[in-house]
Amino acid sequence: MKNLIIERIVAFRNEMDKTGVKAAILPRTDAHLSEYISDHWHIVRYLSGFTGSAGSMVITDKEALLWVDSRYFLQGAQQIEGTGIVLMKDGLPDTPSITEYLCEHLSKGDKVGINGMLMSIDETATLSKRLGGCDISLDVDFDPIDNIWKDRPALPSGKIFIHDEKYAGESAQSKITRILSEAHRQGAQAYFTSALDEIAWVLNIRSNDVPCNPVATSFLYLSNKGSILFVDEAKMTPEVAIYLKDANVSVEPYSSILTGLAAIPKDVTVLLSGSRASGAIAHVLEGHYVKGESPVAMPKAIKNDVQISGIRNAHLRDGVAMVRSLIEINRTIEEGKPLTEIGVADILLKHRKAEDLYFDLSFDSICGFGPHGAIVHYSATPESNLTISKGNLLLIDSGANYIDGTTDITRTIAIGIPSAEMRHDFTLVMKGHIAIATSIFPEGTRGAQLDALARIPLWKEGKSYLHGTGHGVGHFLNVHEGPQSIRLNDTLAPLTPGMLTSNEPGVYLSERYGIRCENLVLTIPHSETEFGKFYSFETITLCPFDRSLFEISIMSEEEIEWVNNYHRTVYDSLSPMLNQDEREWLATATAPLC
Amino acid sequence: MKNLIIERIVAFRNEMDKTGVKAAILPRTDAHLSEYISDHWHIVRYLSGFTGSAGSMVITDKEALLWVDSRYFLQGAQQIEGTGIVLMKDGLPDTPSITEYLCEHLSKGDKVGINGMLMSIDETATLSKRLGGCDISLDVDFDPIDNIWKDRPALPSGKIFIHDEKYAGESAQSKITRILSEAHRQGAQAYFTSALDEIAWVLNIRSNDVPCNPVATSFLYLSNKGSILFVDEAKMTPEVAIYLKDANVSVEPYSSILTGLAAIPKDVTVLLSGSRASGAIAHVLEGHYVKGESPVAMPKAIKNDVQISGIRNAHLRDGVAMVRSLIEINRTIEEGKPLTEIGVADILLKHRKAEDLYFDLSFDSICGFGPHGAIVHYSATPESNLTISKGNLLLIDSGANYIDGTTDITRTIAIGIPSAEMRHDFTLVMKGHIAIATSIFPEGTRGAQLDALARIPLWKEGKSYLHGTGHGVGHFLNVHEGPQSIRLNDTLAPLTPGMLTSNEPGVYLSERYGIRCENLVLTIPHSETEFGKFYSFETITLCPFDRSLFEISIMSEEEIEWVNNYHRTVYDSLSPMLNQDEREWLATATAPLC
Repeated sequence: MKNLIIERIVAFRNEMDKTGVKAAILPRTDAHLSEYISDHWHIVRYLSGFTGSAGSMVITDKEALLWVDSRYFLQGAQQIEGTGIVLMKDGLPDTPSITEYLCEHLSKGDKVGINGMLMSIDETATLSKRLGGCDISLDVDFDPIDNIWKDRPALPSGKIFIHDEKYAGESAQSKITRILSEAHRQGAQAYFTSALDEIAWVLNIRSNDVPCNPVATSFLYLSNKGSILFVDEAKMTPEVAIYLKDANVSVEPYSSILTGLAAIPKDVTVLLSGSRASGAIAHVLEGHYVKGESPVAMPKAIKNDVQISGIRNAHLRDGVAMVRSLIEINRTIEEGKPLTEIGVADILLKHRKAEDLYFDLSFDSICGFGPHGAIVHYSATPESNLTISKGNLLLIDSGANYIDGTTDITRTIAIGIPSAEMRHDFTLVMKGHIAIATSIFPEGTRGAQLDALARIPLWKEGKSYLHGTGHGVGHFLNVHEGPQSIRLNDTLAPLTPGMLTSNEPGVYLSERYGIRCENLVLTIPHSETEFGKFYSFETITLCPFDRSLFEISIMSEEEIEWVNNYHRTVYDSLSPMLNQDEREWLATATAPLC
Repeated sequence: MKNLIIERIVAFRNEMDKTGVKAAILPRTDAHLSEYISDHWHIVRYLSGFTGSAGSMVITDKEALLWVDSRYFLQGAQQIEGTGIVLMKDGLPDTPSITEYLCEHLSKGDKVGINGMLMSIDETATLSKRLGGCDISLDVDFDPIDNIWKDRPALPSGKIFIHDEKYAGESAQSKITRILSEAHRQGAQAYFTSALDEIAWVLNIRSNDVPCNPVATSFLYLSNKGSILFVDEAKMTPEVAIYLKDANVSVEPYSSILTGLAAIPKDVTVLLSGSRASGAIAHVLEGHYVKGESPVAMPKAIKNDVQISGIRNAHLRDGVAMVRSLIEINRTIEEGKPLTEIGVADILLKHRKAEDLYFDLSFDSICGFGPHGAIVHYSATPESNLTISKGNLLLIDSGANYIDGTTDITRTIAIGIPSAEMRHDFTLVMKGHIAIATSIFPEGTRGAQLDALARIPLWKEGKSYLHGTGHGVGHFLNVHEGPQSIRLNDTLAPLTPGMLTSNEPGVYLSERYGIRCENLVLTIPHSETEFGKFYSFETITLCPFDRSLFEISIMSEEEIEWVNNYHRTVYDSLSPMLNQDEREWLATATAPLC
């Protein structure tokens, strides 16, 4: 493999030579700027061997480098070992940014190449400006991958299917009308989006193009005078063709996206999201686009009553699958049978698959035992696969896409008797989790304002976690979506009734164990007073927390009461769907803390 | 008065006619973009009668309008009544912004006039862009006030004096070196500032130009090749002249600021703050300035050890003055003698004035009894002046500038026996206050992240307050300073050891009472763990909270302990400086809650 990587980089450099490009930047994304990507787009993996979910590669005539964030310092180093690729640890004070590196190592007049489809309008503009400051030019049309990657996987060709309105709760026509009205408010007559989850949501269509993301690879142009879906003919069915026609959406080939957009009349102003549309798209629409907020992000994030009802139902079934998985995991260990991290993931998959309306996992299950639990984005491989044994914690972060809703849940369970320190740390995390779950806040509150509520119990003991406390969750769609979030950095979108967000504080003790406690919460109206409207969260996820991990002496009465009430709700909701043995297990697992 | 206002607006319109200006915007600030301004700059007050601390007037050929924020909805309406001026309630959904109003009411090709010295670079650019979008042009040189305001007060002419290094803790030379080094990092060889508190801090000079702000009206240009202070000759003394010369600072007339800056060589790049330097200044330096962060803001906010020692001493003396004031207020009421809101302010002033190193108040004392306490920026006038009587709350927000430090404290005290509701609300506010006071947070934390800790006890009961939880406080300087703050909206400056910030949650029940509890807190290092550096707050203000207002049943043990510990510190710190009677009063006032 290492030699293969070296050969591929040499071949890539030959392509650079041909066009006079002195350095190329290769972001790990696709032409839709996705977080999860299909095999066709795994260019960084092909050129480096790195399999993480975020990172950027730079190849110059002398060096090859890989920028990754702290989640991937360890994994990145391991995976590129022996290839000569240099690991650049993003976020450390001594690590230059890509542009700083290029300004230092290239000469004035040199040219840097990118594929303009793989970088947003804003990123492209910033890159161009910064490189320009060092007299380095940018070629946004540099895409030689097909020339060197001979067996590059094709674009996904699975069939599109319709997400029934009985689950979606709103027709595509109605959504298009709402979106164009918002685009109009932002000074445009049309909206273009390459974001796959936006397209799936707007048109109520799904496919299975990207593992765990039920999206259809396509581009969407929306206008009152007729909309266009750019999509491979192979993905179409007669039913979908008629459905789209009814929604006044015509179909053009995926590959003709740039020529298709070039044909849009110049007197039509098109709205583009600066962060979600690529520089190449903006280039084609130069002179008749406005950069603004995505008009889809907020309507997609605010679930309607039909979706909320589906989300509740999906969480009932997912709760049953989780309880059955926990029972099987516990029983296997109690019986002294061998169980590995991958074995745990298999158990979860088996029980989820058995549930109605199951479609796919919503992300690869994270089952980290002991020290692996401390690696936030751990993914067990046959080489790393630990056997679960008594005396440490098992962190399980998993979820599924059901036709009526998407789930995402993390539980940390003690294998054997937990230490006092484990119980203490777990309880600090739960105090933060409960603070978010019980918070009440005025209209207009942003997630970043609430974030510290989840962290302060840890901070008070000199501990912390660096990931966000919460992300938006799609509806039978991507498990990560915006615009809201609960995190350290500010996000402008206020938490609005109907939004589904994760609540997942954690703490990670390097090489020892990791703890994360995650439920999904729905923003709901709480009250209206002389001070205005107030909202709160309703916890939607249904699955017990490990009672053996609570240190009751550091909990307030209200916190203990919250856990007991939550556990009662879990029992009352799930027990009718369980058999006698399972019910008994759940009754014990949800008994009051005392 | 009303007729006078009407006449003045007519006169102003005549000036508009002369230059073809169809509308003028008049912000309530000075050529230094100050919050507190000298009489010379009270143009909005002169033209409208409005005396609030924030607002903007617009005069068109047909209308005169005053935009004010929620603090001044009531006061603004009262003060402009009968003048024909229209009150525009900023922040309400139905209120257009000034540019929206102008775009709607003016015609294409019309001209709007402003005095370019009274609007920041960023504000001027935004205004120009927005008006440009409606084909309205901007004249940034429209300043006819002198023509109509015949008895306009002169610029302040008090003498400048030197703030001794034994209080400032760092020489002007040292500060200039640090600032120019930061300016250099931002790509400039020089820095220009019109911010009066920045100038006072950099040069260690003070004056008494603006009530409560010990600043010297001037502009400062800093460069390695020699700095320039633009200031009225009348304000200089021989001592200050020699002092400035030693610091390599030459003196030029205040009025020659624009010609003086125009003479700066074009090959010198000057750093300007986009929010604190005016558009007129940027215009003169066009082509050789860079817009960046003020290199003074952070060094000024982070107090050195000498300043911190002075701040502690100032708070000891201020605590004594507060205790003596509270004793006198209580005794006066107990003895049945009449006491008004203004009477309370007089008591505070008398006791502060008696303290060593007293210079001035740091802002006009806010003494609001009962319903007046609910007006956040209440200022008692002879007309509004209430007599204090039993059965309601008295809110006292006051502070002083001592030569060794600035104070800002709010206490809410019960007059007579408080109601259960008052005690409940007070305790909610104190729970927020204590949450901030006891917070511990990692390096890099911004105030906006902590803000909700102060609000959540109120939010949980459908209550809130709309002002910030904390602002930076100067050192023998402006009581409001940046760059840090603790508030709903994000601020980029992290809370850094040495920063002095207020901690002042509150709650305001319209027409009934207001509650605010304010201490100043110093950011200090707390610990260093495997998770990094952690900081905490040390409360600096020393004065008891009213024990009769605590509802102990809703407080946690930790909260009760915090109050008791704080009160013990107050007693131990202040009692050596008090006489026997005062000590006894303080002992009772600081007895443990039980």
